[in-house]
Amino acid sequence: MSKQKRLLVRSDEVVGCCSPLVRQPLSVELAVELSRLFKAIGDPVRLRLLSLIASHAGGEACVCDLTGVFDLTGPTISHHLKVLREAGLISGERRGTWVYYRAHPEALRRLSEVLVPDEIPAVNA
Amino acid sequence: MSKQKRLLVRSDEVVGCCSPLVRQPLSVELAVELSRLFKAIGDPVRLRLLSLIASHAGGEACVCDLTGVFDLTGPTISHHLKVLREAGLISGERRGTWVYYRAHPEALRRLSEVLVPDEIPAVNA
Repeated sequence: MSKQKRLLVRSDEVVGCCSPLVRQPLSVELAVELSRLFKAIGDPVRLRLLSLIASHAGGEACVCDLTGVFDLTGPTISHHLKVLREAGLISGERRGTWVYYRAHPEALRRLSEVLVPDEIPAVNA
Repeated sequence: MSKQKRLLVRSDEVVGCCSPLVRQPLSVELAVELSRLFKAIGDPVRLRLLSLIASHAGGEACVCDLTGVFDLTGPTISHHLKVLREAGLISGERRGTWVYYRAHPEALRRLSEVLVPDEIPAVNA
């Protein structure tokens, strides 16, 4: 009886302190990789630029559609587009007079799944 | 006929330069608000902390489950937890000896939906 009581207390201690993992948390490597992408959109202008590009038909926008929307100079817009491009969230392609920027839906989907990881396998699966 | 031709040329000019919006891009206000949250997880330690908390049963983890995982001092972990808390991504509650951190699924879902905005109404809807 006294032994059983001690076991119950122990069980309480464990439950009280530490809940178990129900799925695998992000690895160090993946966290380093994906936090760079989150950092790139951790700026209101860059987040708006990405949203604006992705909101155009085909997920592609001419730079001439982007510059007029912001009260910023061309070089500042270019800098922010470069940060998004270097993070792998968009790519740019010159066609004639204009550069066209395209959002990368697979990169956006990866970030989205990290935040709401329904599809990450459970630890005990 | 000549009028129709002119209309076609105009249409080409528009299509060639600028693809139309197919949904509403993020507003300035929302971009300011949400970019703060993205910035908070734009750091590998904070992204791992958030993932680790959300991966525990009930989306809640004791601070004692978090500190041992990182090769960082307690004050450094506390600083990162404070940044996540101030961004509204987690909350902390002291119960007895330990502080328990809980991920905020609705905040994570908002960020996820911004990245893959299937549910944002189309401009012409």
